[in-house]
Formats: sequence, structure tokens, C-alpha cells
Amino acid sequence: MKLLETINDPSDLRQLPRTQLTPLANELRQYLLDSVSKTGGHLSSNLGTVELTIALHYVFETPHDRIVWDVGHQTYSHKILTGRRDRMHTLRQLHGLSGFPKRDESEYDTFGTAHSSTSISAALGMAAASKIKGEHRHAIAVIGDGSMTAGMAFEALNNAGVEEDCNLLVVLNDNDMSISPPVGALNRYLARLMSGQFYAAAKSVGKTVLPAPVLGLARKLEEHAKGMVVPATMFEEFGFNYIGPIDGHDLDSLIPTLENIKKLKGPQFLHVVTKKGQGYKLAEAEPILYHGTGKFNPTEGIKPATAPSKITYTEVFGNWLCDMAAADARLVGITPAMREGSGMVRFHAQYPERYFDVGIAEQHSVTFGAGLATEGLKPVVAIYSTFLQRAYDQLIHDVALQNLDVTFALDRAGLVGADGATHAGNYDLPYLRCIPNMVVMAPSDENECRQMLTTAYHYPGPAAVRYPRGAGVGAAIQQELTSIEIGKGEIKKKGEKIAILAFGSMVAPSLGAANELNATVANMRFVKPLDVELVKQLAAEHDVLVTVEEGATMGGAGSAVAEAMAAAGIVKPLLILGLPDKFIDQGDPAALLASVGLDAKGIAASIRARFGAAGGTRLVVNNS
Amino acid sequence: MKLLETINDPSDLRQLPRTQLTPLANELRQYLLDSVSKTGGHLSSNLGTVELTIALHYVFETPHDRIVWDVGHQTYSHKILTGRRDRMHTLRQLHGLSGFPKRDESEYDTFGTAHSSTSISAALGMAAASKIKGEHRHAIAVIGDGSMTAGMAFEALNNAGVEEDCNLLVVLNDNDMSISPPVGALNRYLARLMSGQFYAAAKSVGKTVLPAPVLGLARKLEEHAKGMVVPATMFEEFGFNYIGPIDGHDLDSLIPTLENIKKLKGPQFLHVVTKKGQGYKLAEAEPILYHGTGKFNPTEGIKPATAPSKITYTEVFGNWLCDMAAADARLVGITPAMREGSGMVRFHAQYPERYFDVGIAEQHSVTFGAGLATEGLKPVVAIYSTFLQRAYDQLIHDVALQNLDVTFALDRAGLVGADGATHAGNYDLPYLRCIPNMVVMAPSDENECRQMLTTAYHYPGPAAVRYPRGAGVGAAIQQELTSIEIGKGEIKKKGEKIAILAFGSMVAPSLGAANELNATVANMRFVKPLDVELVKQLAAEHDVLVTVEEGATMGGAGSAVAEAMAAAGIVKPLLILGLPDKFIDQGDPAALLASVGLDAKGIAASIRARFGAAGGTRLVVNNS
Repeated sequence: MKLLETINDPSDLRQLPRTQLTPLANELRQYLLDSVSKTGGHLSSNLGTVELTIALHYVFETPHDRIVWDVGHQTYSHKILTGRRDRMHTLRQLHGLSGFPKRDESEYDTFGTAHSSTSISAALGMAAASKIKGEHRHAIAVIGDGSMTAGMAFEALNNAGVEEDCNLLVVLNDNDMSISPPVGALNRYLARLMSGQFYAAAKSVGKTVLPAPVLGLARKLEEHAKGMVVPATMFEEFGFNYIGPIDGHDLDSLIPTLENIKKLKGPQFLHVVTKKGQGYKLAEAEPILYHGTGKFNPTEGIKPATAPSKITYTEVFGNWLCDMAAADARLVGITPAMREGSGMVRFHAQYPERYFDVGIAEQHSVTFGAGLATEGLKPVVAIYSTFLQRAYDQLIHDVALQNLDVTFALDRAGLVGADGATHAGNYDLPYLRCIPNMVVMAPSDENECRQMLTTAYHYPGPAAVRYPRGAGVGAAIQQELTSIEIGKGEIKKKGEKIAILAFGSMVAPSLGAANELNATVANMRFVKPLDVELVKQLAAEHDVLVTVEEGATMGGAGSAVAEAMAAAGIVKPLLILGLPDKFIDQGDPAALLASVGLDAKGIAASIRARFGAAGGTRLVVNNS
Repeated sequence: MKLLETINDPSDLRQLPRTQLTPLANELRQYLLDSVSKTGGHLSSNLGTVELTIALHYVFETPHDRIVWDVGHQTYSHKILTGRRDRMHTLRQLHGLSGFPKRDESEYDTFGTAHSSTSISAALGMAAASKIKGEHRHAIAVIGDGSMTAGMAFEALNNAGVEEDCNLLVVLNDNDMSISPPVGALNRYLARLMSGQFYAAAKSVGKTVLPAPVLGLARKLEEHAKGMVVPATMFEEFGFNYIGPIDGHDLDSLIPTLENIKKLKGPQFLHVVTKKGQGYKLAEAEPILYHGTGKFNPTEGIKPATAPSKITYTEVFGNWLCDMAAADARLVGITPAMREGSGMVRFHAQYPERYFDVGIAEQHSVTFGAGLATEGLKPVVAIYSTFLQRAYDQLIHDVALQNLDVTFALDRAGLVGADGATHAGNYDLPYLRCIPNMVVMAPSDENECRQMLTTAYHYPGPAAVRYPRGAGVGAAIQQELTSIEIGKGEIKKKGEKIAILAFGSMVAPSLGAANELNATVANMRFVKPLDVELVKQLAAEHDVLVTVEEGATMGGAGSAVAEAMAAAGIVKPLLILGLPDKFIDQGDPAALLASVGLDAKGIAASIRARFGAAGGTRLVVNNS
């Protein structure tokens, strides 16, 4: 690591002679492997962008020139080269380096990313600002081929192509793999570009078929075809100057090409081909397995878990989906490019004709589901809570307004751990609850999750089940596909004076807290429609009510209880517990929940702090 | 109207000989003009789609074959031909025909539309369903060139192109005009396609330059270039079979082309060129003026208003934008294709280099703004409340999470009148309030709107001002650019026992209600941060609290007050008034508000119903 140790920021890098860059890349790749195998994190994508990262910082004057990394999980090399090498061991941990670019972390992180396909918009904004301010800087978006399928990237290309005097460079990092295998027409198109047949075919026709004098004419025609008649690529049709494809692991291609591009004016598009996992054979062979890893021994690679781990909510969903598909031929499953993350691998294998991976295209996924529903099929859209934000309008305008029968399986609801604030599913209860016609459920355990999915599926309108990342409490799962009654919660534990109205993942810690306080605990099950009768009953039988949810409290489930109390004329003390009104960074999920008082101890403490040590016996109520 | 009177549904149309279709088109166009000039509505787009509508229903077996009309404001001919001719006089009125397709209204309205760019997704869903169910039907999306710029349309194209055995037809209705003038690279591209140079140039080279024997070879090369080497158009690159462009007013082109397409398998793309306002000279000359009209005399055309009407909130914003731009060179204004609707015509004229119309691209508009903000500029994103739903993730992930200084001017908040449920801005308070770092304001009058815009602008983070469609109360507007204190409401009227906490447009009717009840009225101004001190003060001084907002109550402003009361330990009766949990159809805004009890009379009645005839003196409080 001799060379790498000398690089404390990109200006050090730019001092190196070109000949040193390949050895540096080798060191960097080894450092990445060592580092990620110790901390866990994204491996394949980072191994694939070593040379590109070096080349960009070598050629451009960062941080004066701006690099925006789309999705941003491929920025470990960037972090290492921009002064954060010695903090890589803290990656994705509490108070450690983020697994994504983060403006607070470094001036080299010009724009926080994590959700896909934002980079061209952001970089175009930077380029436009630089033009308005009369500054001379380059703005560079580095975007993968998977991210290019999201509509937002096209919106930005469409806008950028007419900003002729903007110094915008879009680098398409084409590795033919987003998290799920690539789908869609664009990927086919890129594959054709990569195979070179666009150019090669015309040339070979010229060379092999035509006699010499016609050759010149054929060339002319070819140029004509590439220039005036038909732009060479789709990206030129969007107003970009297209360069490529070039080998993204070859610094001798990358650096001269970038140096040339640096001199050009207007929107530039560089098509770079890389390989995920490059340089680590195990990851090259199985890039999806090494996409996001835990800790592992780099010599041995990732080993299958020996002890069976607790079933995750994702697996509960995946199993339910196959079982329900077997029971009902109308079921169709939709994922916006998250087959693995959403637990749909087996469903895809068993029901390929009823499986739709629509690409990174959340908006389309929801309206496509709406279209299927109009014809009497029963679409299940599997989507992370945080990504449904991308399809919010489609949910309102295309699904809920028409009261169409679409089931939403919302994974990663609440805090998500190592991915941090960008991936947290903290807003779904407020943003779903305000939509007419929606049914919104939160399971307290795995079995209830399965029952709620069945309930949502049979409900003849839009219904969402939001469940957390990872494993639950370990409840036994009944195989029958049973429903629960819409809008009915249940009392889990009878106590007195204090009633805790718990939602979803907060039922378990609320039971813990209730043991200390001799409180009643209700598993509310439904955020919408709320079990108003149960709220009334609990209010009548207790002195104070407490709500607990793993989500933003502003407008959330506790807020629903407050509204119900107001509507019913219930005038009682109410304590609303949930996530505070701030973005919560990465960390161990249990530790994070404890830090915001959402473990059993914290819930009990909050209740005591508000209502006195003896629970309901020493009520402290202002203005009453 | 002899012919038109014989058409009660498309099967009647399909009985007509081809020779009768042009006379029918003429009658239909006249009927449209007569009808829309009496009711108001969208004119230009409907005059432009007369022949296309006839041709589609003539060739395809509607309703067995499905037509999805993108945006849907061009469906008046469709409505007239599908049994709703005699209800056209009720268009866009309470209990009348919707101005958009609506599933409840007709089996021919296969999918409700209004927000742009959903049609390809929905039609692809229908086509996929038909394949799964083994049915033989065509699914047709009719989409304008403006709508094609939204990312969602590209997501759908990308997905559709690989569904090779789906009977999907996308009809691009290219009239080179969305509501605002077209922008972006795609429109330039379509213009090139329309000019025919893609084909013509290659052909003329072949004809004029080459000697006869080479001509055949050149043709081969040309075919090669169009086939294997380079697909002829972007749409073929997406896997569609591209046909066109053809004249969308020529039934003799349209019908044979559609008949041929009907026989083809796989995704088809028909490029049709039409003219907005076709056949009515005044609309042809000024299609934007005739895009959405009130009532007018067709002979005279739309006349400028003689009496100056009350200033609208849109105009308040437009004036503020110019004034603030004059005061601060860092201001940049962004619109997603709504220059006219958002009141930005003058700003565009005065500050062209600081004006960005990014196309129908809400997602991009917000992240583009975020990019500008990272460079120290002060972006103002003008967007309708209902359209910000399209950029919800970008607001959370790109703006709020990074606490970037972007100002959101949210027009059309609350009920919108004739456009109905699809355009209502009823959900912004819940969906904005749950996002950390946001400031959310609602002005009670025009002057306060200006002050709030100034406040939002100076606030160094994300801030939104949401104001209603149309005119306000008629308050005098101070020219100074003054701010108000963040998080501070004000008491507008002192009363007793009952405190009404009113938000935005509900301050005026609340004052009316308070006169009857001798209630106190506070103009809360801020939904976030809520003025908790004011809530405490009002609670201390009154027996009951009432909140009133023009928005969904679930998670809304009243809910915020309930949360604040709970947090402060205030145990008092609370009545939350606002929009009910259902989608509210079109109608006169004042009548609609009255129908849900949000006029002065309704507010007073709700308070009396809850708390007794004498206001706070006979409190009816359950369970207290």
C-alpha cells in the first residue's frame, strides 16, 4: 500500500506520473477488498469503478469540478482517495462513514445520493449554476446502466440536451447489471452499442463487399448516416456528444479520453464499460452475491450460513407470494428491479409468466399494476417503503382514486440500519394514511405479516402491508392463507391505568415496557382504517393512552389515534411515541431504536417521564 | 348534425361508410366548438383530435379493445361518440361529465387520466393482462408529445419494448405543444422526424449523386443502416415498430394505417401529426389561449376581460417572483412545463437566463433545483400541489435530507373546482409535514402569500407556501418584500370559550363562523413548525379548540394541533375540520367547500353540532 498511503486527497493523486496509476489501482482494489470484507458493504460495484474513479480525479480538478455519483454505493474508492482512507473501517456503522456520498462528510461529496437516477438532474443544476455565476467548472454525473432506466434520468437527459453551453459530462458506467439482472429495451440497446455492431457492421460491409472506388462513397454514406441522416446513438438524439464505448478498466483509454472531453463544450456523454467485481474472481463470477456483503474472509469468499437464521419479513413475503400464486391464478407480481431484495427469486422461477421486473421504474411499476388491475388480475407490487415515495402520485392518481385492487408489499418500513437515512421507510404511514380508499396495515410478527398480506390481497381496493427490514420476533407461521378482519386490532395484554396502542414492530417492545408498568397493550394492526372502537374501549378503561410506532410521528399512527379521540370527543392524556422529526443516520437497527427510545426500556422511560413513576397513578397533565 | 345524431355508440360509427366520416368529423368539430364555448373547457386539444378519435373507434372494436387517453383533456370527441353527447352541456360541472376520462362514467373510459404520461404504463398493463388471460384485444395509448417528456413514459416504453408478444399500440399525437411551449431534446428530435429529413436525406443522396449501378448498393446500405446497423428511430431502439409520421387530420391516411397496424403483432408505435385548434382559426392562431377556456362567443372568440378581475394567487406569485428576482440575483425559477398556469410568463420574459422550463418532468425539476442550490443559487420551484406528488421522493431524498435551500410555490392547494379530484391539492399538508427540515406555510390572504414567499425564500432550507387556486379575499398587497416570523401565528379575533385555529384559506370563513359564535380565531400561518405557544395560549384561555383546514384531515394541520396538544399535555376537547377522507369530484369551488362544511355557515354548524348551540357553554364531551 505504498502508493495509496501517499494519497491524502486528489491533488496528491494528480502529482503521480501516469505510469504509477495502474499500480495504484491494484493497491486500491486490494484495499477495498480488505476493507469491505471486514466491514461488509457494497463490493462488486466498487471493484468495478476503481480505474474510473482514479481517472476522474486525475483528470478533473476536484473538488472545484463536481462529481455526482449516481446511487453512490460505488464511491468507496472515491472516499479512499479523498481523505477518508483511515475511516473506512467505520463504514456504514454508527457515527462512521456513510456507505453513500454525503455532503456533510466531505467537500468532495457534492451531492448525497442513494436512490437511483438523480445524478444527471443534480449535475445539470450544478452546471447551470456555474454558467449563471460565470464560473468555469465541470459537472460530472456518473450513472450506471440500471439507473438509466428510471424515468428521472431521461427527464434530465431531455432537459440537458438543449442546454448547449453547459459543461455537463454524463459518464455511463455500463456494467450490464443493476442489483437484479438488467431488463428492458434500454439494456438491449446498450448491449448492441457495446457489441460495436452499430459501427462495425457498416464498416465491414464497406470493406468486404464494395470495390475500392465505391469504398470512399460508402464511407461518405456512412458518415452521412452517422451525422445528418441518423444520429449515431440515442444519446446524440438527446443533444449529447456521444463518445465510446471505451474500456473502463483501461486507464490508457480512460485518461486521454477524459482529457479530450475536458476541452469540449456542451453536454458530453461518455460510455464506459466496466465489470462488476473486477479483479476479484469470486465477485466477477457472482456479482449479485457480492453486491452487498456482510463480513467475510476474502480468501474463502462468502460462505453459505451454516446455522439457519431466523426467517426475515422479506422471506415471509416471498413464501406468501408463491403460496398465494398457487391458490389464485389471477395473482401477478411486480418489482421495480428488486427481485432479490424483495424476496421474489422463487416466485420468478415458479411463475415466470406472472412475474414482471419492470426495471428501476417505480412510477411505471405502480401504474402498470393499475392497468393489470383494470382487467381483473390481482397485482402485488413489492416495493421498499422508501422507494414507493417515487410512485406517490401514481399511487394516488392511478390506483387509489380509481379504487383499484392493487396490493402493496412495503418492505424496509421504519429504520433500516446500515443504509441510513436515505433508505429509511419512515414516512409511509403519513403519506399513505391521507389517501382515500387506502387500507394500511403493520404486522407485529411474521405470522401476522402473512395474514395481513392475505387480507390486503383479498381486499378489493388498494391495500398496503408495511413490514420492517430483517427478522421479526420469531413467531410460528401458519401455512393457511387466512385473513384478519379489516380495521380490527386486538388486546395483547391486560393491565391498568395505562393503555399502550402499539403498531407493527413496536408491539413487542411495548409488551416489554408494559410488563414494568402493568400497562395494557393493544396490537392495533391497522393504521387505516383505525380500530376506533378499540380506541374508545381503551380510553374508557384507562387513565392515559400511549401510542408507539416505528415511523415519523408527524401525521403517523399516533396522530391517527389523536384524530380519532378528537372525533369521538375523548378527552384524555395522550403520549405519542415514534421516530423524532429528523433524519436518522445509519447504525445497528436495535441501537438506533434504543437511541430514540423505541426499545422496551425507552418506551417505559418515556411513559414514566410523562406520567410519573407509578405509571398512571401520578398523572401529570397540564391545562386539564 | 344529422350524422352525429345517429351515433350513440361506436358500433353506430362502425356502420358508416368511409365516405361519411369526413362529414361526421366536420359535424363533430362544430359540435365541440358550440359545446365548449357554452361550458368552458379544453378546446385546442379537442379540435386537434377529432379525426384521430373517429379513426380509432372506427378501426378498433371498442370497448373490447382498450383506448387509454393520456392526460385525457382531449377526450371530448371520444365522449360524444361513446353515448355522452347529450350530457356535454354538463361538462366539468357538479354532477356533470368529467373533463377527463373516468371509469365510473363509461365502459369506454378504460382508465382515468389527468396527470400526464400514465397511458403507456396503463395500456401495457392491459395488454399484459390480456396475454395472461388468453384474450385477444388491443390496448392503445394515445399520448401527446408533451407527455412523452415525462420520465414515466420512458419507463413504460423501456418495459414495453421487451414485451414482444403484447398487442400494445402507442399513438404519439404530435402537435408540438403541451400547455407551455415545448422544450427539451425530445421535441427537437420529433421535429426532425416530422420534417422527414431522416429518410429524405438518405434518399436524395442516393438519387442525385450515385450512378445507376451503385444506386442499388446504396439502397442496400441505406436499408442496412435503417435495419441492422442503426434503427431508424429512437422508438425502434426501444423495441417498437415505428410507423409514421402521418397526417392526423387525414382520415384517408389514418384509417388504412390503423387497419394495417391492427394486423401486426408486438409493440407498435404510430406517429401522428396534428394541429391544436384545427378547424377553428382563432384557436389555430392562439392554441395556448384556447387551451382551457371559459365561456365565449365562437364568432367573436375570447375577449380580454373588461373589468379588471381580482388578482389571483398565481398572479401574486408571479409578481413576487419578478420583484424578488430584481432584488436578488441568486434567484432562479423552475417550472415543469407550467409557465402560464404558474404565473411565470413575465418572469420568463424579464429573466430568461434565470428561467428554466424543464418539460413535464416534476422529478427532475426538484432535483435540478437541489443541484442549483448546492452551488449557492436560490431556486424557486413553482409547481401545483397535485403535481408535487410526482416529485415526492426527490423532495425528501434530494432536498430535505440535505436541507437544501429550495423554495416551493405550491399553487392549486385544496379543491380546484372544474378539474376535479385528479387535480385537487388535498394531501400536501400530510405529505409535507412528515418530512424533517421542511417549513410549510398557508397564507390567509394575498398579502400574506407574498410575505410567506419572501419568508420561504429567506429561510435557508426547504420551505413551501401552499396557496389555493383563483383569487383570495382581496387584501391590499404591500410592495415591500417583508418576511414574517417563522413558526408564529396570530390572533385575528378575540372571542371566548371557543378557539378556532384556522389555516390558510380557511381563516376567512372561520372569521365568519366566529362572528356567530363569539369565538376566537387564530390565523395559524404555519403548519410546520406549528406555533405551539399559540396553541397552549388558546387552550389555556378557551374551553374547546377547533381546527379548520382546506386539505385532508388525516395527518393534516388539525392533526398537527392534536399532536402538539398531546405533547404539551393539553387535555381539552378538539374538533378537527377539513376535507373528508374521500376523493371529491368537480364542481364550483365555493359550492364544493360548502358541501363539505367548509364555508362560514358550515364551520359554525359543525361547531354547534359538536359543542352545543351556545358554543362552548354546553360542551358535549364524551369519556372525559
